[in-house]
Amino acid sequence: MIPDRKSHRYTPNMASTEGASASPSQPLTLTQLAGLAGVSTATVSKVVNGRSEVGPETRALVEKLIAEHGYRRQRRQIRPTNVIEVAFHALAGEYPVEIVKGVQRVAHAKNMSVVISELGDRHTPPDRWIMAMLSRRPAGLITVFSGPTDNQRVRLATQGIPLVVLDPAGNPGFGVPSVGAANWSGGLEATRHLLDLGHRRIAMITGPEFALSSRARLDGYRAALDGAGVQIDPDLICQGEFQIQDGVIHTRRLMKLPEPPTAIFASNDGQAIGVYHGARELGLRVPDDLSVVGFDDMPAWRWAIPPLTTVHQPLTEMGATAAAMVITMAGGEPLQQKRVELSTELVVRESTAAYRG
Amino acid sequence: MIPDRKSHRYTPNMASTEGASASPSQPLTLTQLAGLAGVSTATVSKVVNGRSEVGPETRALVEKLIAEHGYRRQRRQIRPTNVIEVAFHALAGEYPVEIVKGVQRVAHAKNMSVVISELGDRHTPPDRWIMAMLSRRPAGLITVFSGPTDNQRVRLATQGIPLVVLDPAGNPGFGVPSVGAANWSGGLEATRHLLDLGHRRIAMITGPEFALSSRARLDGYRAALDGAGVQIDPDLICQGEFQIQDGVIHTRRLMKLPEPPTAIFASNDGQAIGVYHGARELGLRVPDDLSVVGFDDMPAWRWAIPPLTTVHQPLTEMGATAAAMVITMAGGEPLQQKRVELSTELVVRESTAAYRG
Repeated sequence: MIPDRKSHRYTPNMASTEGASASPSQPLTLTQLAGLAGVSTATVSKVVNGRSEVGPETRALVEKLIAEHGYRRQRRQIRPTNVIEVAFHALAGEYPVEIVKGVQRVAHAKNMSVVISELGDRHTPPDRWIMAMLSRRPAGLITVFSGPTDNQRVRLATQGIPLVVLDPAGNPGFGVPSVGAANWSGGLEATRHLLDLGHRRIAMITGPEFALSSRARLDGYRAALDGAGVQIDPDLICQGEFQIQDGVIHTRRLMKLPEPPTAIFASNDGQAIGVYHGARELGLRVPDDLSVVGFDDMPAWRWAIPPLTTVHQPLTEMGATAAAMVITMAGGEPLQQKRVELSTELVVRESTAAYRG
Repeated sequence: MIPDRKSHRYTPNMASTEGASASPSQPLTLTQLAGLAGVSTATVSKVVNGRSEVGPETRALVEKLIAEHGYRRQRRQIRPTNVIEVAFHALAGEYPVEIVKGVQRVAHAKNMSVVISELGDRHTPPDRWIMAMLSRRPAGLITVFSGPTDNQRVRLATQGIPLVVLDPAGNPGFGVPSVGAANWSGGLEATRHLLDLGHRRIAMITGPEFALSSRARLDGYRAALDGAGVQIDPDLICQGEFQIQDGVIHTRRLMKLPEPPTAIFASNDGQAIGVYHGARELGLRVPDDLSVVGFDDMPAWRWAIPPLTTVHQPLTEMGATAAAMVITMAGGEPLQQKRVELSTELVVRESTAAYRG
């Protein structure tokens, strides 16, 4: 685990305190690290620059010291390039495009370029990818819906490469800057909308269990039901994986319950479209027979028939915010906020209608 | 205009012929160019490396000579980075994601990374962008649905940066390698499918006039109608811009004709979804009252209701092919084919039905 206050000091122009004793709140210099580890400064330099000609035990020792105390560069040993790296777990649908648009906008204004990678549906980057990325010497890294392991974060920190996790799937790690959306509020608002329309049997399809965003949406759903005095029925909460197919499968099951739901809140737009298809199979009309709310507000589904009522997640602004944070850190400035949560907003279109008893 | 055979010789390891007289089929060396231009080799070097401290007239003269004779580097003056640049006219919808997936797959297998840019809906890159891109020293450039101007191509060629135009909107320029899809065949197949279903009043919504892909789809449509002995009715051919709204607007107009169409072939999936909405407004059912065929086969619209019959365009393979071509050229190898056209395929889903007279 990287200590919060230390790992984000990217202060290449800081006055040198080489030789001074380390205060507990002060990250260590190369010389101080070499002294503590009992190795040469050249060896420490090799470790922080990701070079391979260091024994694994020495590397581990130096990295442990950096993880404990932090590391303060006097100047960057290797000059970073003008590149922001963005790593997606998967390149699919409009979600990555919406995010890249925002990253790009901010990067280009600073004359920086954006490198895109796909991690192949993995939620932590493969070590091989991390090594290749480090060798490209980016100004910073944004991981989307995925995050580096503790060890990988130490590697990034030792090389002075700032990291921001966007839409963190799991806990991004203590002190790791992240940008998300107000998922809980979005879940609350979506469910309240259905309650306001008179619905009481409201089902929810969740995202994967490990995804914090999904958990927050579910908790918002629960809070809205509790607030309205509607008892939560576990039969109406279905585990999904953010896939269209989730909506199809769970709608089939839900609508065969003795007391089927009259509305379904899906954790993303894809699942909501799956609900449309499930309903169609069963000869049910959206919204006449079944109200549906999604989450994300992907441009395509504004053109679903009927147009989808959904919770807008500001993906482009999230991308722009993450890029701005990375650039701030790369410039050695402190972040005003480590954890940014942008607001979500319900967009009412035509997939929800009043409950007709 | 860049001469075909010369501009694509990226032969950094070629044996030196410095000082030898230039044969007509042989691109010139730095020394030969300097001799012809009556300037120092340092000046020519500055031009080919895109440095600014050369007068505009001298630069123009050297670039003209390179355009006429070609330029052969002895070795790369500036080592290129391991980066492929991909420039989109717009980052919107799934089209860019599908292409990037393919570029990425090939690039990563070669340990290369992919930089994405958005040109802001322009069909030629701004000079400012070209300069910034050149300063990043990429191994190569792929422009998508857009292409550099003649001058910009000379600039790329002088710096030895290979270019591939993907889905060229206009003529990519004589000798410029390009990757497209079999648009004409796709238009033919889509229209034949509707003819086979018994439709005779078949409308078409085109893409923008400057887009070659759109023109080819339209010509395929005409060829299919001609082949079936169906007279082409200009009232049924509508000018669009590859926008969803095109489908909405033209459906409204078409269905009010004295003899309205019973089927519409749209030039992309977005337009086809617009037709769904236009039909819905008018109380018409797809496909019962109106058959619709799209073009592209974007993943989202496989989930339209009803699922869209469309012409599959292999965007991911097109991206992969363009990346492989760029890498081949960057390695100084000749291309087997300068203009690659990947096949398209009709995918019949549920938006088309037999003509019911």
